Amino acid sequence: MSNYKVGIFGLGAMGFGMAGALRRAGLMTHGFDINTDAVAKFKAEGGADGTLDEVASTLDAAVVVVVNAAQTEAVLFGANGIATKLAKGTAVISCATVAPDFARDMARRCEELGLLYLDAPVSGGTIKAGEGTLSILAAGAPAAFQKGGPALDAMSAKVFALGDVVGAGSSMKAVNQMLTGVHIAAMAEAMTFGMTQGVEPAKFLEVITQCAGNSWALESRAPSIVNGDYHPLSAVDIWPKDLGIVLDIAKSAKFSAPITAAALQQYLAASGSGLGGEHDSAVAKVYARNAGLTLPGQD
Amino acid sequence: MSNYKVGIFGLGAMGFGMAGALRRAGLMTHGFDINTDAVAKFKAEGGADGTLDEVASTLDAAVVVVVNAAQTEAVLFGANGIATKLAKGTAVISCATVAPDFARDMARRCEELGLLYLDAPVSGGTIKAGEGTLSILAAGAPAAFQKGGPALDAMSAKVFALGDVVGAGSSMKAVNQMLTGVHIAAMAEAMTFGMTQGVEPAKFLEVITQCAGNSWALESRAPSIVNGDYHPLSAVDIWPKDLGIVLDIAKSAKFSAPITAAALQQYLAASGSGLGGEHDSAVAKVYARNAGLTLPGQD
Repeated sequence: MSNYKVGIFGLGAMGFGMAGALRRAGLMTHGFDINTDAVAKFKAEGGADGTLDEVASTLDAAVVVVVNAAQTEAVLFGANGIATKLAKGTAVISCATVAPDFARDMARRCEELGLLYLDAPVSGGTIKAGEGTLSILAAGAPAAFQKGGPALDAMSAKVFALGDVVGAGSSMKAVNQMLTGVHIAAMAEAMTFGMTQGVEPAKFLEVITQCAGNSWALESRAPSIVNGDYHPLSAVDIWPKDLGIVLDIAKSAKFSAPITAAALQQYLAASGSGLGGEHDSAVAKVYARNAGLTLPGQD
Repeated sequence: MSNYKVGIFGLGAMGFGMAGALRRAGLMTHGFDINTDAVAKFKAEGGADGTLDEVASTLDAAVVVVVNAAQTEAVLFGANGIATKLAKGTAVISCATVAPDFARDMARRCEELGLLYLDAPVSGGTIKAGEGTLSILAAGAPAAFQKGGPALDAMSAKVFALGDVVGAGSSMKAVNQMLTGVHIAAMAEAMTFGMTQGVEPAKFLEVITQCAGNSWALESRAPSIVNGDYHPLSAVDIWPKDLGIVLDIAKSAKFSAPITAAALQQYLAASGSGLGGEHDSAVAKVYARNAGLTLPGQD
């Protein structure tokens, strides 16, 4: 066990996996969440003991892995926020997908308290989170990279160092989510369109992955439709949130993003028709329903 | 030189490359085009001599590589159409992107003349055409595959045999074009969106190709924007045509394809503003113009 101490705030699907990766890398890892079952489960797997007030001032790094900007702000600066409990010089590694302006605001407020802020959204999903093989899109001061380094390394296969201007990580994350969200919905659109022309989903997967229409998202998500398996590795409801953030940023910049906007509507239709908790590939069910098609595994 | 004789009809960007690949594979290859300069150039590089009326009845395979359905029909059944000049048992390899119904109609009319029709659109672009490393999405009778085999093998790295029902090749090609067209425009949308947030195009290319937002189209087209090089390896004007075909098929099937429709609008804006002859990555110029951005290499 290293002397390096990490607190991870948020033990959801991503955070729980990342906490395990930190722990298995030999870092003393404290897990916190308002869900006490998740905290107990993490401690049972080897998470370190201690209340927030006991351990906060001893941490080298605080990794914040919550759903959105509001939760990130609550963890840092809410009623029982950690920012004033951490020692000066602690690295604050903020991993949620947020707007770049929000990241800059959090950094400023953390820096006023002597904390080292890293704008560090992640890419890769829950499986890579658990393996400690995420990609981290990180921006912040060199001192923040240095202090947070052991935690970053434990969680990731690759850290993209995007410079010392906080917000660059969140900007790149927004770009990545924009493309991934569009590609998943486009895959669903093309697969179901193909079905209207007699192209079976399994044949689609076999052929298109070897042709110009291929994408990472297609390779990742098309098999779940072929197999009729909508277990939510990454839920439909991620996309109204993340593409919503993207389009909010775009609107602020007066940037017209018609393809992203069209994709968002399909996820909203999926969520609105009760599919929000299914795997995001279930956006294909919207297309299938609209076209009178029956997907593999459906009645 | 093999005894196998091929006529290739259409010596444009794709056809000229494919003709060279056929010739270099040792097949006796006759090139035909209404552009007499292209015909002369192909003969100068080793294409076989002979007028259409002299050679048509001696061909083993006729490869039709024109722009669309109308040109395909004109080559086969127009005023000087080849279908009635070919010997029974000749393979007709139809490579243009067309609607599946059109392919079935051509097959029926060819089969009435004793010809062996292959619905065989290609994927891969002009560079792979010249290398003889295209992907061919082929459907037709076993006898057609057998007779056309030497020509298919010479032109391709991979032949996807999609069964004996003509139209399956064109259906898969439509699916592939739908995704490729959407992905190129989405790449342009995301790259220029990133620019509004301080993400430079070169950094976008470096990072996103290693993240979940990656696609074949992004890897293929983003470098041209980074380099400011819009030499038309595949022109903007391909997409109003091919996505137009896709959406015509979708409309016939009462299939709602909102993402494809949004992408088509961006290509139409590119074409309508004078960019139709540039590389299809120039769709990024529409986004840049709309957002007041300056792309690499622009004044």
